[in-house]
Amino acid sequence: MIEARKEAGSRTARLDAVFAALADPTRRAIIERLSHSEARVTEVAEPFPMSLNAVSKHIRVLEASGVVERHKKGRDHILSINTRSLDEADVWIERIRCYWEERLNAMERLLRELKKDHKAGPKLTPKDRKHGSR
Amino acid sequence: MIEARKEAGSRTARLDAVFAALADPTRRAIIERLSHSEARVTEVAEPFPMSLNAVSKHIRVLEASGVVERHKKGRDHILSINTRSLDEADVWIERIRCYWEERLNAMERLLRELKKDHKAGPKLTPKDRKHGSR
Repeated sequence: MIEARKEAGSRTARLDAVFAALADPTRRAIIERLSHSEARVTEVAEPFPMSLNAVSKHIRVLEASGVVERHKKGRDHILSINTRSLDEADVWIERIRCYWEERLNAMERLLRELKKDHKAGPKLTPKDRKHGSR
Repeated sequence: MIEARKEAGSRTARLDAVFAALADPTRRAIIERLSHSEARVTEVAEPFPMSLNAVSKHIRVLEASGVVERHKKGRDHILSINTRSLDEADVWIERIRCYWEERLNAMERLLRELKKDHKAGPKLTPKDRKHGSR
């Protein structure tokens, strides 16, 4: 029970960190770069019109969120993406969209039924028909 | 051209705002509540162990990001969700996952081919077979 609460707590903290990491255009651009292939820190920093130090700060935020991982290859620091943390964020958004789609589908069904009833018009009994004809 | 850049700029700003809005457990809980049905501000605030004022601040962040909309019904302020802004965030994450999945699939194909070659072993010529059998 306490374990389950701990797990939910850490998932909540992970979602907080991942969404905060994604809330910046430079960090999103770094993720897009790494989604194509892993790369050295200097390679990742190169296209940005800011100091290596400024990019490094963004990379540290991404590492803390778990979206980006770093390993050493000789002298180089290699960055790669870990999509598992993005999966959790995606699942969260998808769930909200699911509820929403269910509600829209239910509304559409209701509208279709109302339209059908409207087309059929008020139901006529045999008696009504007799009075109506002529 | 300038229009296209403006549009990209505002999409970037929208993504920043949506991801920042999602980076908080109270705000995510409010979105989950509203994904089931629209609700009055007081109804939304009720389950949270914080002041109405504190919840109102979170609601304002959600409104600024475009995820939540507010309209008046008589005296009541009714909140509802606008999933279009979530759609953009979802599309962004999905695109990253897509690249990733393509790379994983390519790696899997390569591994399968290597395994097949390994199983087949070095190709034997009829001559090799003759020498080998006895």
